[in-house]
Amino acid sequence: MNDSYLNFVNSPFGARLASSLGLPKPEVLRRYRADRPEFEGLIAVGAGPQPRMLEALAGMIARTGMTGVAHESAGLWIPLAQRHGMLTGRFEPVASGARGASGSAQGRMSALLFDASGIEDTTQFDTLYAFFHDALRSLDKCGRIVVFGRPPEVCATTRQWTAQRALEGFTRSLGKEARRGITSNLIHVAPGAEALAEATLRFFLSPRSAYVSGQVVRIETVTHALPVFDWKQPLAGRRALVTGAARGIGASIAEVLSAEGAQVIGVDIPSAKEVLDRTMRALNGTALAFDIAAPETPAQLAAALDENGVDIIVHNAGITKDKTIAKMTAAAWHSVIDINLAAQERIDDTLLEAGTLRHGGRIIGVSSISGIAGNRGQSNYATSKAGVIGRVQSMAPHLLERHITINAVAPGFIETQMTAKIPLAIREAGRRMNSMSQGGQPVDVAQTIAWLAHPASAGVTGQVVRVCGQSLLGA
Amino acid sequence: MNDSYLNFVNSPFGARLASSLGLPKPEVLRRYRADRPEFEGLIAVGAGPQPRMLEALAGMIARTGMTGVAHESAGLWIPLAQRHGMLTGRFEPVASGARGASGSAQGRMSALLFDASGIEDTTQFDTLYAFFHDALRSLDKCGRIVVFGRPPEVCATTRQWTAQRALEGFTRSLGKEARRGITSNLIHVAPGAEALAEATLRFFLSPRSAYVSGQVVRIETVTHALPVFDWKQPLAGRRALVTGAARGIGASIAEVLSAEGAQVIGVDIPSAKEVLDRTMRALNGTALAFDIAAPETPAQLAAALDENGVDIIVHNAGITKDKTIAKMTAAAWHSVIDINLAAQERIDDTLLEAGTLRHGGRIIGVSSISGIAGNRGQSNYATSKAGVIGRVQSMAPHLLERHITINAVAPGFIETQMTAKIPLAIREAGRRMNSMSQGGQPVDVAQTIAWLAHPASAGVTGQVVRVCGQSLLGA
Repeated sequence: MNDSYLNFVNSPFGARLASSLGLPKPEVLRRYRADRPEFEGLIAVGAGPQPRMLEALAGMIARTGMTGVAHESAGLWIPLAQRHGMLTGRFEPVASGARGASGSAQGRMSALLFDASGIEDTTQFDTLYAFFHDALRSLDKCGRIVVFGRPPEVCATTRQWTAQRALEGFTRSLGKEARRGITSNLIHVAPGAEALAEATLRFFLSPRSAYVSGQVVRIETVTHALPVFDWKQPLAGRRALVTGAARGIGASIAEVLSAEGAQVIGVDIPSAKEVLDRTMRALNGTALAFDIAAPETPAQLAAALDENGVDIIVHNAGITKDKTIAKMTAAAWHSVIDINLAAQERIDDTLLEAGTLRHGGRIIGVSSISGIAGNRGQSNYATSKAGVIGRVQSMAPHLLERHITINAVAPGFIETQMTAKIPLAIREAGRRMNSMSQGGQPVDVAQTIAWLAHPASAGVTGQVVRVCGQSLLGA
Repeated sequence: MNDSYLNFVNSPFGARLASSLGLPKPEVLRRYRADRPEFEGLIAVGAGPQPRMLEALAGMIARTGMTGVAHESAGLWIPLAQRHGMLTGRFEPVASGARGASGSAQGRMSALLFDASGIEDTTQFDTLYAFFHDALRSLDKCGRIVVFGRPPEVCATTRQWTAQRALEGFTRSLGKEARRGITSNLIHVAPGAEALAEATLRFFLSPRSAYVSGQVVRIETVTHALPVFDWKQPLAGRRALVTGAARGIGASIAEVLSAEGAQVIGVDIPSAKEVLDRTMRALNGTALAFDIAAPETPAQLAAALDENGVDIIVHNAGITKDKTIAKMTAAAWHSVIDINLAAQERIDDTLLEAGTLRHGGRIIGVSSISGIAGNRGQSNYATSKAGVIGRVQSMAPHLLERHITINAVAPGFIETQMTAKIPLAIREAGRRMNSMSQGGQPVDVAQTIAWLAHPASAGVTGQVVRVCGQSLLGA
């Protein structure tokens, strides 16, 4: 739960010692706090040829209250920004050789945003290079890099598809070299879905996405109008079911969804009833002490949710029973698959069939880096977590007509009671092997889930988003 | 080029020292040699419910000359094997607690093969667990794990899709825990494509795939008949163009394709002409000293290939010019993208338009783990290598009607003159951070390319196969 190295190297003495010994100095990540402004400072805006996102972005950035300044590649930006009543100006790079952190306040950027949506060929990459070459030094610590492109598979030509696909290697490389708590993400916006990118842009600009880097997110078009909502309390009036909610990541999910306005129904096993009751009481939520593995639970959940139904389901409950397969018992194999995967299937099938999960609902599964990359001694767990990815991919198309989205988050190394039990050397390796040089916090997973649960995230479905600080691990 | 640690710990003295100090002991990987049998020993066969691949597998395994023995989950195997005239019997696990290596010869397996193609639901995983629980200890060093499943996206139900997708986490986990030079791969066979899996099964059973683990390969149906070929010289009568062929990985590709019967045309820059000439002379090949980046090269290549055309194009030529983006020159950005990516586009477009690449041809690009995961200081290189993935994905559907396949290999840490220049500590980390605890050899990349170039690999297209020993790195 406690990264003592991170705390130490960020103390005055520790920082001097780390610097003289050449030790890594992970940045204290800036995280969302209700009592501090979520969006502030300057965004440098760059663009490739024929940028299709700029107009929509001008409105979105104006609504955040940030100021967008134009790199020379984005000449269109200034009139667009003025039309939206935004302060604007020209981006001026900090002097070559100077670091952003020591540059003038004027030269320091909170975010770098590049519209690559019009790039049709690899020969059109020059402004992409020029923008980040000029601007990366100006990006402040805990800054944000967001690149907008098109989903490769909808591109009209193979050369465009190739160029758009190439952006993925670029954005991930920037995340790995930027360091200093900076995140770098790529948003693929389907043609016609430009206006649907707002919740996603806000998430990736916000300190809420502190531990989400190196990701590619797709925004699809939707045929229905978004419901009315308030950016300050987007989940107001919505009911959210969270499994495994008594403690740890589940409790954090319940807290964040509640802070965003949701009415939370927390589920956990009967043996955790007391803790669950306490967690739910603090949120004015409802506690349901059910064992999700029990065959009668889906029907009991449907009954408990009654005619009001539910808008958001977060399948967070999960267990590990690690052993290499030769030493693993059949019971350990079976219970991990059943609780982490099959229980989700039974619950969703029941709630969908009964209509308990309402029109416009959200299903969010918790997968894992182990489900992506596999892991030694976790053949049961990795199977279950890869299956969570399969659920998301298979169900998304079927849920479209009910305007329900389904997505998964895949946490990397998150500081919890579970990871606190890992032997020190392995824990340290897990913590440092990512672009943030530290583990994430439960709230990082919770905030990512809140973005996926957002009413304005209607165009995000069938996707898996890692919450891993751009962990080196993968497949 | 030389992994002195690997050599040392596999010497009698080094092995004792490593064992007493608890150092990792990477296995000396068994690689293909023309003077040794490619397939030998026992394969344990397991199966889930309604195994759809077993019948085709019986014929394929009979043709390798190996003996398939049936785990209790695969009762159908024995009559099938007998029908194909194969020696067979029941799989008997080595005694619990005993390691495969010290078990009786009868108990030692060269490969474990599981047919999961009929699994329709996560509740049907019991035999998957039982087979590997019983059999993994019996698998010899440098053994092979191959799991057959269905491409998730063609499954009839969401539950089947989920279960089939879950196999990916399972297979990758086994690769990470098996160690001892064992590879573990998953083959997704589309319904109706069962008979097209043979070249792929042979590759994954063979020592040719020594450094390919943790991969998922898809076999699609094709509408045309395969050409006549000989398993001993599958590329006989075929012409193969290999760029960057003078030395290193390119020279190894040329050698392997030539050994498989292909007539090789090697391309390299004029300054490497002498080395290229020597490499090609040894293979009875043709040397073309062209700069692939020159605008006139595609037309010159088409002319040089004349009316005989070409059957196989391997885009291996590539350069690195590493710098963080703030320090990277525009020239370094541009030349890496141009040589590694745009040159491939120009050459293929010309050869396809002119009909120089013949019906039933093969295009194989060389990508990189950097193209998948991004890499610090390689924003140009990672962009180009991610673009190679984009080319493969975008062009595959367009080439179907000409029966041309396009795929990419993505090498991880391969021992070359290039990696020999990496500072020792970083080189050691790169070498050991994979399931083989060692770097690969150029021949490992070359053999993977030869499999993709195979006339019987007609059902494999649009895919990216890592040659990385199941590197931990990924996205």
